[in-house]
Amino acid sequence: MSEFELSATPPKSVRTRGSQRSIIRELLKLASKPDVISFAGGLPSPKSFPVEAIEKATDWVLEHHGAQALQYSSTEGEPALRKAIAERETELSAPVEADNIQIVSGSQQALDLIGSAYVDEGSVIAVENPTYLGALSAFKLQRPTFLTIPTDEYGLNPDKIGPEFRGIRFAYVIPTFQNPTGITLSEERRKKLAEKAREYDFWIIEDNPYGELWYDHQPPKPIRCYAPERTLTLGTFSKVLSPGFRLGYVVGPKTALDPLIVLKQAVDLHTSTFTQLISARCLDTGLMNAHMPAVRELYKTQCSCMLEALEKYFPQGTSWTKPDGGMFIWVTLPEYINTDEMMKEALDRKVAYVPGSAFYANEPELNKMRLSFVTVPPEKIDAGIKILAQLVKERIDAREAK
Amino acid sequence: MSEFELSATPPKSVRTRGSQRSIIRELLKLASKPDVISFAGGLPSPKSFPVEAIEKATDWVLEHHGAQALQYSSTEGEPALRKAIAERETELSAPVEADNIQIVSGSQQALDLIGSAYVDEGSVIAVENPTYLGALSAFKLQRPTFLTIPTDEYGLNPDKIGPEFRGIRFAYVIPTFQNPTGITLSEERRKKLAEKAREYDFWIIEDNPYGELWYDHQPPKPIRCYAPERTLTLGTFSKVLSPGFRLGYVVGPKTALDPLIVLKQAVDLHTSTFTQLISARCLDTGLMNAHMPAVRELYKTQCSCMLEALEKYFPQGTSWTKPDGGMFIWVTLPEYINTDEMMKEALDRKVAYVPGSAFYANEPELNKMRLSFVTVPPEKIDAGIKILAQLVKERIDAREAK
Repeated sequence: MSEFELSATPPKSVRTRGSQRSIIRELLKLASKPDVISFAGGLPSPKSFPVEAIEKATDWVLEHHGAQALQYSSTEGEPALRKAIAERETELSAPVEADNIQIVSGSQQALDLIGSAYVDEGSVIAVENPTYLGALSAFKLQRPTFLTIPTDEYGLNPDKIGPEFRGIRFAYVIPTFQNPTGITLSEERRKKLAEKAREYDFWIIEDNPYGELWYDHQPPKPIRCYAPERTLTLGTFSKVLSPGFRLGYVVGPKTALDPLIVLKQAVDLHTSTFTQLISARCLDTGLMNAHMPAVRELYKTQCSCMLEALEKYFPQGTSWTKPDGGMFIWVTLPEYINTDEMMKEALDRKVAYVPGSAFYANEPELNKMRLSFVTVPPEKIDAGIKILAQLVKERIDAREAK
Repeated sequence: MSEFELSATPPKSVRTRGSQRSIIRELLKLASKPDVISFAGGLPSPKSFPVEAIEKATDWVLEHHGAQALQYSSTEGEPALRKAIAERETELSAPVEADNIQIVSGSQQALDLIGSAYVDEGSVIAVENPTYLGALSAFKLQRPTFLTIPTDEYGLNPDKIGPEFRGIRFAYVIPTFQNPTGITLSEERRKKLAEKAREYDFWIIEDNPYGELWYDHQPPKPIRCYAPERTLTLGTFSKVLSPGFRLGYVVGPKTALDPLIVLKQAVDLHTSTFTQLISARCLDTGLMNAHMPAVRELYKTQCSCMLEALEKYFPQGTSWTKPDGGMFIWVTLPEYINTDEMMKEALDRKVAYVPGSAFYANEPELNKMRLSFVTVPPEKIDAGIKILAQLVKERIDAREAK
């Protein structure tokens, strides 16, 4: 196919000329080599997948609703799944009905649809600092202006939200086991954020992929509970059932879901009927409730293991978050250590992480890194953290030798 | 949830303020009532779904590759599926490798990604007249200017393509069993279109969802065979395996796929690993080849049945296409009959079709309608066409009485 390789492309749109491959996706390629200890991925542990239960659910769906499962569906989503999610969300947070649920092809699609529906070039949207890089990629397609919400060790600080938030399109936040920091916002701050949203009349986009991955106690209720009239909450099955299904949902006022439906019709018609019905069956048979304790226990153990290794190996002058759930630890190194630059050497020594710079909308902080502890076996967590600690020590020593 | 109902939305983007729900999707809702004979849908016949074979393939995938099938995947698509599609495309059309295949969440997503990657506001893109309304919805998100390619009873006429095509972003065409007309472009016209594309230096986006649904003989080769260096061809599993999988693909030069990958990372990360691996298994086990003859026979019979009914009931002054494959017949009524207006009465009499006006990028023709023959049982096809014929006759009689 040499002529293929030589050829060009149709004339590119301004959007495409500006966009680049996601750093995390490119890193994942290098990090996915079998000899690399990768703390880079946001992948859930495959040990957490209920393969047999999914096989049972699939067989049941094909036997009882085969023609429906393989046919086109509505853009809003399968009624059975919307109902099951509404019941679950009602139980876990605040009352909603099936009409308040929009099914999407993974919560990444929700981010894209929300950006497309509610952001124009130059629109101001607020994000935490740092925030999920996939959200930045999705929102950046619209070329907005980012306003960063000031944060401290307890997460975003609503007291610092002032009149500059009036008129913004929305504030995007991950209040529970945040990506990348692992920090959980207190109930008090959630309430205050809801008050500020009312005071300055802005909407909240609440991303909640990790809420069910708590270790010892449930996190505070979603922000949606405190400002239901101006919050869209994003949920996903990727962290609790299967990311391979590409199944997520948006919860919120029907009026605010309607523009997303119009766009979704144009961008992919609807989400897979097949995976929707299988997931509905998994919810209806109580699989999620039966399955989650084991996932929580697994992740808690993995997290403890990494925290112990950090404590054991990492030198003075470094610090890290201690999450109560989720998948990530956020490490702060001395200010003169650049984790972008350190990454190449880490990969040479067969360890991977995500450099902190990827998670900033505006000015990046360069001395941070995100570590995921969920997929690497305990003995390799220890070995990988030891190697990272060595890299850091070498840089501290070099600095002190000057 | 009364407070939800009363609430507004975040400030809407210009795109959302301009866009509307797809007519076809809204119609499908009315048309899907059980007492309506619907010729409106583009749904394949559920009789064509190989439910048992899919169940077997699913069990195999979960048993042999369970953890992989439920995990995140790469944006390009699962290697096993890309390889299987490349082999099939090589066999059916012209040689390609796995790297020339990009997996998408239904070919509707390919239309959206192509629009997003290659169209800016005001860019000129060429479409057939009439063309697939879902392509118009996807492309319209970018607010382009549409240039219509002149057509006659044999489809688009490449001889009419002149210098006004120079500098356009691309020409979007459905050369085989076109939607909505059912017309197939001859080999000669395909070659000439390829020549014109070279002469005026434009790309071709070739949508080929129906190519395998031929009745008596295979259609001419895809246009990609005649201009591989400047064609992206869209394929889908929706018409030959299951639309509920939401699985499609783009075939073409790697350089032109790259911008789509960058965008797909941001809009949904990747397509369902689960349905990709099941489909790869279906291809590898020869299911498609074993399964297609029965689907072709079914659709051919359904098509003949509708053509007979049209012949039997439709009055003088009407005409329709006689497709050699695919799912649609395109009916032309006397110029004074407006099928948009007739639709309400048709639904009152429990018959549905898609008004022709939905398929035009610019000035619509109002005396056309698209009829799908694939899902309605033969006796109902006869009854439904009889009712439509009556509606048409009433309008002709009213006109003649004046």
